[in-house]
Amino acid sequence: MTLFLHNRLAPARYKTRRDKLLASLKKQSIDALLVFAPVNVRYLTGFTGDSSVLIIGKDICVLVTDGRFTAQLEEECPELDLDVRKVTETQPERIAKVLNKAKPMVVGYESDRVTVDACQSIISLAETLNFVAHKGEVEELRKIKDEDEIKEIRKAIHIGEKAFQLVRLGLNKEQNELDVRNELEQAMRRFGGEGPGFETIIGSGPNAALPHARPGTRVIGDDNHLLFDWGVATSQGYRGDITRVLITGKINSKLQTIYNVVKEAEQLAISRIKPGVSCQEIDALARNYIAEKGFGPKFNHGLGHSFGLEIHEGVRFSPNSTQVLQAGMVVTVEPGIYLPGFGGVRIEDDVLVTKDGHEVLSTLPRELEEMFVAW
Amino acid sequence: MTLFLHNRLAPARYKTRRDKLLASLKKQSIDALLVFAPVNVRYLTGFTGDSSVLIIGKDICVLVTDGRFTAQLEEECPELDLDVRKVTETQPERIAKVLNKAKPMVVGYESDRVTVDACQSIISLAETLNFVAHKGEVEELRKIKDEDEIKEIRKAIHIGEKAFQLVRLGLNKEQNELDVRNELEQAMRRFGGEGPGFETIIGSGPNAALPHARPGTRVIGDDNHLLFDWGVATSQGYRGDITRVLITGKINSKLQTIYNVVKEAEQLAISRIKPGVSCQEIDALARNYIAEKGFGPKFNHGLGHSFGLEIHEGVRFSPNSTQVLQAGMVVTVEPGIYLPGFGGVRIEDDVLVTKDGHEVLSTLPRELEEMFVAW
Repeated sequence: MTLFLHNRLAPARYKTRRDKLLASLKKQSIDALLVFAPVNVRYLTGFTGDSSVLIIGKDICVLVTDGRFTAQLEEECPELDLDVRKVTETQPERIAKVLNKAKPMVVGYESDRVTVDACQSIISLAETLNFVAHKGEVEELRKIKDEDEIKEIRKAIHIGEKAFQLVRLGLNKEQNELDVRNELEQAMRRFGGEGPGFETIIGSGPNAALPHARPGTRVIGDDNHLLFDWGVATSQGYRGDITRVLITGKINSKLQTIYNVVKEAEQLAISRIKPGVSCQEIDALARNYIAEKGFGPKFNHGLGHSFGLEIHEGVRFSPNSTQVLQAGMVVTVEPGIYLPGFGGVRIEDDVLVTKDGHEVLSTLPRELEEMFVAW
Repeated sequence: MTLFLHNRLAPARYKTRRDKLLASLKKQSIDALLVFAPVNVRYLTGFTGDSSVLIIGKDICVLVTDGRFTAQLEEECPELDLDVRKVTETQPERIAKVLNKAKPMVVGYESDRVTVDACQSIISLAETLNFVAHKGEVEELRKIKDEDEIKEIRKAIHIGEKAFQLVRLGLNKEQNELDVRNELEQAMRRFGGEGPGFETIIGSGPNAALPHARPGTRVIGDDNHLLFDWGVATSQGYRGDITRVLITGKINSKLQTIYNVVKEAEQLAISRIKPGVSCQEIDALARNYIAEKGFGPKFNHGLGHSFGLEIHEGVRFSPNSTQVLQAGMVVTVEPGIYLPGFGGVRIEDDVLVTKDGHEVLSTLPRELEEMFVAW
């Protein structure tokens, strides 16, 4: 049986990642790290299930899991030690048992990923060990994408773009937001996506003013613009994240104005992306431009974020970000202007930070004249 | 604009729930509870977004949210006080500010829902207040479904069953698991579901031996059985959860045997469901029956779980459960036998615990002779 291998890279890739992590843990005198986040477990091992915790350190590399996943794990991660908890054991109980046996002196735990309860249970059941909060270590590695990851992200973006183009061509005025969402998600799967990489946003007219509009029964032909914010997840778990606004009716000057302000703000921010530039500066470029044009308060969220295995990863473009761009990061740039009751425009592209500058990975048209739907 | 009201019950329903919670908090001398789980926030307020924390107590009922959700919240929860954090503030910072202003003496927090990090941030920023871990309070209320909830669960099950029947009729031998998954999810949406209520499992032949099989490219006509474990989420967030195995080829005696053992085990367990019976007893009925037939080690997970707004809620049928059934609970019963390399059978139905006994909410056929696909 090879049921899961399509989800997995070459084993050496995971080993490289674990070795990097081990080197870093060693420097910090952490003898074992409890990796709670399923996405971090996947990054380090290729295992695609959940409810499983990786204990990794200089003398230990074991995945504490349950009976539902053993067959999957034996195939996905043959090189990994498994520890399968009994139906009568809780996960913290089992983790404590493994730790009490291996006795690493200093145990780090992902304090931003584990609940207070689970953490306290483990600590109280393994009280002779020294526990320290240790977060962001795997996320730090994940910030810089390797070649395999960039390839998968390109694939996700490509599938998402094909799906959008198909749905765009097939639009008709009688469809409502839910119809459009359903067609888009169906198309993503048709082109090989695992499914949507996050909750698809389809907002018609006034609904586009809601940064997190949930598709409903509003008929798209009744409004003059339609916002799509969507992305696919590939079988390996990588995502894309694009936003486009189509003009579905008669455009007016207000819509035209905000469309162009948002587009200019986006392009301005993207143009400055390169290693060494601060995320705050990128955010400010778009934010100040929008403010100069008189729409400052109508842009009420961060400018963008890194993504990969998760749709929102550690790097953020925001007014108080202290981060600096590095080659290998993959980020979105997504300014928006939202006018309650009227509508909104957000334009979002995906950008790879390269050694010398950047590469815009998403390729769909974004000029206003290219966004008109011919009914 | 009424964009979100289809997701929402009458405001009085949420008020009733909050009042029950407040009465319970009062008894326990908790002046305010921090509700971190989005699903608990939804249960208490009707708000369907995330990234928002409800602070509820005798003198306070405020939702700490961010700018993306204000328009949605003003519509969904007009009766609720909102506190919108700035783009430059973290959520813990904002929560601490609100608490420092309101000054509840004893603050409970959902210790099984909040991360160590977020919790410690809040506590350190509001150190004059007295914080206590306080979990499971809202989940306790959610265990007993009210009339609106049972109606929604019936709806979810009905949509899921219609979708299954449609896909079953249209099956062809050349489809692979992914094709079947895609058609099933498309059908769920066609019949009004919001989407799948959990990750759809489609397992053909040997893949059915994996309790959490992920659909892949295996062609269904090449095997003699096909397992479906699926459920819809309604617009109000309620789920259904059913498993069926179709016979897609020539049946053999091993498959026939395990099918009938699983079915008998399931029916035996369901027959005993009524208020006052322990969850351990229900689990043991099925587990012992399967063991008597010689397949004990091949049933490696719990017998079932309650569900509603979440697919796995607090009540569990397992060998070490200490819970007792009460009227108004809605549970699944899902025994299985898994033979690695050969295949597996799991049969799952949804059951409402009534005053006098139980009502099986799912209605799809489950007798072996009804499971054959005529190609």
